[in-house]
Amino acid sequence: MGLLVVGSIAYDTIETPFDKIDDALGGSSTYISIAASFFTAPIHLVGIVGSDFKQEHKSLLAEKNIDLDGLEIVENEQTFRWGGKYHYDLNVRDTLFTHLNAFQNFNPIIPAKYRKDKFVVLGNIEPKLQLKVLEQMDKPEFVICDTMNLWIETAREDLDKVISKSDVLIINDSEARLLAKEPNLIRAARKIKSLGPKYLIIKKGEHGALLFNESQIFSAPAYPLESIFDPTGAGDSFAGGFAGFLHQTGDLSFDNIKKAVIFGSTIASYTVEKFSLQRLMEITKLDIKDRFHEFKELSRFDYE
Amino acid sequence: MGLLVVGSIAYDTIETPFDKIDDALGGSSTYISIAASFFTAPIHLVGIVGSDFKQEHKSLLAEKNIDLDGLEIVENEQTFRWGGKYHYDLNVRDTLFTHLNAFQNFNPIIPAKYRKDKFVVLGNIEPKLQLKVLEQMDKPEFVICDTMNLWIETAREDLDKVISKSDVLIINDSEARLLAKEPNLIRAARKIKSLGPKYLIIKKGEHGALLFNESQIFSAPAYPLESIFDPTGAGDSFAGGFAGFLHQTGDLSFDNIKKAVIFGSTIASYTVEKFSLQRLMEITKLDIKDRFHEFKELSRFDYE
Repeated sequence: MGLLVVGSIAYDTIETPFDKIDDALGGSSTYISIAASFFTAPIHLVGIVGSDFKQEHKSLLAEKNIDLDGLEIVENEQTFRWGGKYHYDLNVRDTLFTHLNAFQNFNPIIPAKYRKDKFVVLGNIEPKLQLKVLEQMDKPEFVICDTMNLWIETAREDLDKVISKSDVLIINDSEARLLAKEPNLIRAARKIKSLGPKYLIIKKGEHGALLFNESQIFSAPAYPLESIFDPTGAGDSFAGGFAGFLHQTGDLSFDNIKKAVIFGSTIASYTVEKFSLQRLMEITKLDIKDRFHEFKELSRFDYE
Repeated sequence: MGLLVVGSIAYDTIETPFDKIDDALGGSSTYISIAASFFTAPIHLVGIVGSDFKQEHKSLLAEKNIDLDGLEIVENEQTFRWGGKYHYDLNVRDTLFTHLNAFQNFNPIIPAKYRKDKFVVLGNIEPKLQLKVLEQMDKPEFVICDTMNLWIETAREDLDKVISKSDVLIINDSEARLLAKEPNLIRAARKIKSLGPKYLIIKKGEHGALLFNESQIFSAPAYPLESIFDPTGAGDSFAGGFAGFLHQTGDLSFDNIKKAVIFGSTIASYTVEKFSLQRLMEITKLDIKDRFHEFKELSRFDYE
C-alpha cells in the first residue's frame, strides 16, 4: 500500500537576498512527496494543477515513484502561483502574490485504489478539505496533519475536527502558541495534545524540533547551517521525510518516531540549501545517511 | 587547589507576575559558587560587600565549602542592590534600580593562596577587572569567562583581551549576535572563536545551548519547564555547574565538556524554579543526577 499525500502543487516565484527564481516547482504536496520518496514507494499524490503544468514536472514526479493517478488537471486554467520575498533575516517573508487559479476549486477526490492506504499525510490545505480526504479513506491507521496560522484563525472548528482525527500534528512554534493561546511551549503542547493527536511535533527552525507523546518529550537539534539559501518548503520536506521513513519501516514505536523526526530534519536541512527542489534533486540516500549521523554527533553525550 | 570565582555579590529585589522578594541573596559570583559547590571544593570566592552583609549569608556560603578569605567587606557601605521586574513573558525584564554601593569600587585582590588555582571563573564584571584578576594569577590552565551586552557595547577593547585569554566564553544568543555583528548563530560562533577562546557556549534559554570547539558543535536540549518562577541567576548557575563539574573531574576532553554543559543546564533548570537561591538550597546531588538522566532521555535517539 502507498503513502497518500494530499496538498497544494504550485509554481513559486521566490526572491531572496541572494537570487531570484521564477515559476519553480513547489507546493506542499510536491515537497512532501519528493521528500518521502527517498524512503518509500509508491507515493499516492492527490492534487490539482492547470493545463500549463509542465510535462517535465510530471516526469520528475513519476521518476521518484510518485503515482499521478490522483493528479487532477483543469483545462483552460493555470496552476496555483505563489510569489514570496525573503529578507536578510530569513525568518521573515512577504507574500508578493497568491493566484490560486486551479487550486481555488480543489475538491480532493481520492482514487479508489488509494482508499485503502494506511498512511495519510494531510498537507497544509483548508481543514474542511482535509476532513473530506479522511472521509473517503477506508481505515487509515496513521494520519499526519500539517496546518498554518490562517486556518487556526479562520477555520478553528473544522481544524479541531481534523486534529482530533490525526495521529500526528506538525506545526511550528508560533502556530503552537497561537493554537493553544499560551506562550510557554511545553504548556502549549499539553493543551494541544488534549485536542486528540497521539503525537505533536513543534518545529522551531534554527532551534530544532520538539516531539511529544502522552508523557515523553524528545528534543531534536537543528542542523547547524551557516547559510540558508531559500527556506521555502522546509516544513513540508520535514513532514515528507518523517512520513516516508515511518511508512517504510512500519514501526510506530516512540523510538522509531524519534528517528523519523531526525530524518525529517535531515531532508529539511538539505531543502533550504538551494532554491525550490533543486537540492533534493541532487542528494542521494547516502547523503541522507551521512547527515543523519551528523545529527547523532551533534546531540550525543556520554552518561554513566 | 580550588576553583577561583570572581564576580558580584548582591541583594536582589525581584518582582515576577507571581510574587515579590526583597533583598534576596544574589550576584553572579554567589550563584556561580553555590552551583559549583554541588560538584567540587574548595571554592575560592573573590568579591566585595558592605558591612550590612548578613552573618547568615556568610554562614550559608561557608557551609557550601566556599572559602571567604577573598571576601572584602567595606565598612560604612552597603552591599550592591539590584531591583528587577519580570513580565508574563519572562524573557523580558526591567531593571528597577541599580545601587552599586560597595561594588562601585571593586578592585579584585586575589589572596596569595588562591593565585596558584588552575581553574578560574570570571563572572560578569567590567572586562578591565577581569583582566586584573588574570594578571594576578600564576598560571591558570582553564579560564571561563562570562560577559554581557553592556561590556560588548562599551568596553570592547578590554573585552576582546579577556576573551583572547579565556578557554571558554559563555554568552547568550543575543550577546553572540551583538558581539559578532551577525544574525546567523553558526556564523557568529565562527567569528567569535576567531577572537581566541578554545570553546564557545551560546545559551539559548528555552531552546537549550550550543557548544563549539574548533571543528565540532554540540547541541544541548533545554529542560522542558512548564513554568519558570524567576529567571534570575540562571546563566550564572549554568556557568557554576559547568565549571564545578570540570574542576572536579579535571578531564578537559570535548566529551567531558559536553557533559559539563548538561550539568550546567541541569543546575540552571533548578535555579529558575523558585526565587533567588531557594531551590539550590533544597536540591541534593541525587536530584542533579536524576535530572541529568532526564536530559539524556530528552535527546537520545537510536541510530544504526
